[in-house]
Amino acid sequence: MARPRVAIVVTGSELVRGDRHDRNGPFLAHAVLLLGLDPARIIIVGDAPRDLESALRDAFRADLCIVSGGLGPTHDDRTVEMVARAAGTKLVLDEGLEAQIGAVSRSFAERLGRPYADFAHGVRKQATLPAGAVPIGLAGTAPGFVLKTEHAAVIVLPGPPGELQRLWPGALDTPPVRNVLERARHRDRRTLRLYGVSESSVARTLHEAGGDGDGVDVTVCARDFEIHVDALAEPGAESRAETLLGTLRAAHGRHVFAEDERPVEELVLALCRTLGLRLATAESCTGGMVGERLTSVPGASEVYLGGVVAYADSVKEEQLGVSADLLREHGAVSAEAAAAMARGVRERLGADVGLAVTGVAGPDGGTAEKPVGLVFIHVETPDASRGGDFSYPADRESIRRRAAIAVLHLARRVLSRNRHEPA
Amino acid sequence: MARPRVAIVVTGSELVRGDRHDRNGPFLAHAVLLLGLDPARIIIVGDAPRDLESALRDAFRADLCIVSGGLGPTHDDRTVEMVARAAGTKLVLDEGLEAQIGAVSRSFAERLGRPYADFAHGVRKQATLPAGAVPIGLAGTAPGFVLKTEHAAVIVLPGPPGELQRLWPGALDTPPVRNVLERARHRDRRTLRLYGVSESSVARTLHEAGGDGDGVDVTVCARDFEIHVDALAEPGAESRAETLLGTLRAAHGRHVFAEDERPVEELVLALCRTLGLRLATAESCTGGMVGERLTSVPGASEVYLGGVVAYADSVKEEQLGVSADLLREHGAVSAEAAAAMARGVRERLGADVGLAVTGVAGPDGGTAEKPVGLVFIHVETPDASRGGDFSYPADRESIRRRAAIAVLHLARRVLSRNRHEPA
Repeated sequence: MARPRVAIVVTGSELVRGDRHDRNGPFLAHAVLLLGLDPARIIIVGDAPRDLESALRDAFRADLCIVSGGLGPTHDDRTVEMVARAAGTKLVLDEGLEAQIGAVSRSFAERLGRPYADFAHGVRKQATLPAGAVPIGLAGTAPGFVLKTEHAAVIVLPGPPGELQRLWPGALDTPPVRNVLERARHRDRRTLRLYGVSESSVARTLHEAGGDGDGVDVTVCARDFEIHVDALAEPGAESRAETLLGTLRAAHGRHVFAEDERPVEELVLALCRTLGLRLATAESCTGGMVGERLTSVPGASEVYLGGVVAYADSVKEEQLGVSADLLREHGAVSAEAAAAMARGVRERLGADVGLAVTGVAGPDGGTAEKPVGLVFIHVETPDASRGGDFSYPADRESIRRRAAIAVLHLARRVLSRNRHEPA
Repeated sequence: MARPRVAIVVTGSELVRGDRHDRNGPFLAHAVLLLGLDPARIIIVGDAPRDLESALRDAFRADLCIVSGGLGPTHDDRTVEMVARAAGTKLVLDEGLEAQIGAVSRSFAERLGRPYADFAHGVRKQATLPAGAVPIGLAGTAPGFVLKTEHAAVIVLPGPPGELQRLWPGALDTPPVRNVLERARHRDRRTLRLYGVSESSVARTLHEAGGDGDGVDVTVCARDFEIHVDALAEPGAESRAETLLGTLRAAHGRHVFAEDERPVEELVLALCRTLGLRLATAESCTGGMVGERLTSVPGASEVYLGGVVAYADSVKEEQLGVSADLLREHGAVSAEAAAAMARGVRERLGADVGLAVTGVAGPDGGTAEKPVGLVFIHVETPDASRGGDFSYPADRESIRRRAAIAVLHLARRVLSRNRHEPA
């Protein structure tokens, strides 16, 4: 029996024009995958009636269609009308819903000191749903709902990501969606994360091991300079998935750093916590990005003391104790400066582990000897001091991101003392 | 004459599963909008043949279809085959292209010390294009190309964003795409950016002024705690767009901070540059995010000296001179601590302007008196010292982002001495 297929329709003129990046599509796709459904397509479309209706018609061919956005009170919020049109049903005023939305609007009108009459038209519009729709709760004054069309179960949710995520669980508990979920089939999901090896090299190993297929679906994807391998196995194909991943481990084991979805900054903090070490950062070209990543992890304060963003040379000298002689002789972008920064921040902040990054992020400031993209990193611990460097001629943001990730991986390697892995 | 419509098809199983956020769709949508075309739909789809073919068939109804990804040498890179199938054309080996891709693969094979025969099959696959396709250059061994189908001009580009963006201009200079561009009509685009006012309040003003329509298309969108208003005007409707924006300026002028797309960190750096002031940051809960944003701007080093990430109280005391008494009396999350941090980083780093942030980012660490989401910010300049605070009960990342943006906007206001705007 085929796994039910899901189409996601994300509405918003600012999204289809590239003014904003969509977050709802990935959230919903990931959620339905974990429910054992098959996310087949994400469609991003504006609020022009013709575009929206045709996108919905295409999406209603799936077993489950999830629509986000366009539920507001104004005329250019057309999702409900177009859902009804594409489903071939009438629009009907839901009086219970009208009372509910009216109550919200009344208190809103009072707060603003405006007459309720100003809102009555919008309330009626928002309480009018396709015939047969099941409301699943309000986001402000906008109702989410579920509708059964000829072929698809349709879930309509508000656009703001927080509101969408809040109403989502309620949608799953409606008869049309429960019918779809009864046909769901969970797949076993395994993850392998590698660093320091190329995507094509991992893909080749996979290909030489027979590739995916036969109930196993493997994606190899370069993401933030790491390689993420995800294997989805149909029931019964788990051992074949495990064999494939075993081959990858055998060929690239020294580059495998995780078999779960924890990011490298979380692994570094966990290693420090286990070893009872406290961490500090000294950043030049990354400007705070390493600290920002470390502190994105809840509980970072147990391990991470803080750091110095040493952007100007004066800050490297005065706050980190990097000597003027060293800077004159080797330059601020050098292995020597990186090592002195790591040592300096460790001493100044009273940390056990110091991480340092210095490089030329561009677009200006490059020279023949030290071109844009040249980066030095260094990690110093109580019993190790290790540096690294790379040259990555790219745009400013990519160089900086790569530098931040590189020093975190160097710290992970030094702290995990994985001698199989190259420095 | 209707503006030519564009459909964008982004392929990638990791994208349709929500494992990765797409960057190509927004890039391409924004690019075609600026060319005077109408981005009608972005479709994200996996590499299953059935899904890919049906998405392409839907997209070929547009005037221009842009496809990204799935051009690799392996069997699950199916874009070329499915484009040919959806277009109803045959696949043909392009011998010139085979020689070109072969040369790249040969040098690759040599570097890896592998026989070229291992690559020959992949080379032939990648040199095989739909009949009539015009190659527009290689990304590694993957050729981008342009194809004219019965209705649409189709541009096929590689998936990696850097490669896609590199081949994009060449695609515009092919006969099928030039034909589409001849029918393009530019729209005047105006931008208004506001801070400190709600999206619904801006939308209401717009509605009361008659709303968009009549050749003007206005989007109001909350993004990173700012409100971005974009007005697109058809030829002849420019003055109506200007009138609408004038109404917004009259109603919300003290909240308008830009009429272009420069982010707030760039405005802060520009103000400092103009005033001859040098900048430093002291960050607790944001962990480096403010420094990271400032240094994302090329040339930041002319103005930004660096900062201290004072995550632990010991770092606030020792690196910023915040007194232990103050921390004991008021706590590290307090207006007093924020002010002392701003003063401290200004003095220690020899800067003219100090920015400081301290708050409870959660999810743990909140108390009844100082709940998760409470943030204090402070800006000190040679002739002003101004603080602010807010309470924003949300997730850790949102609190941190909002804190970073709030302190940058406070700095902008203090430096621009806009007395009309509330602190």
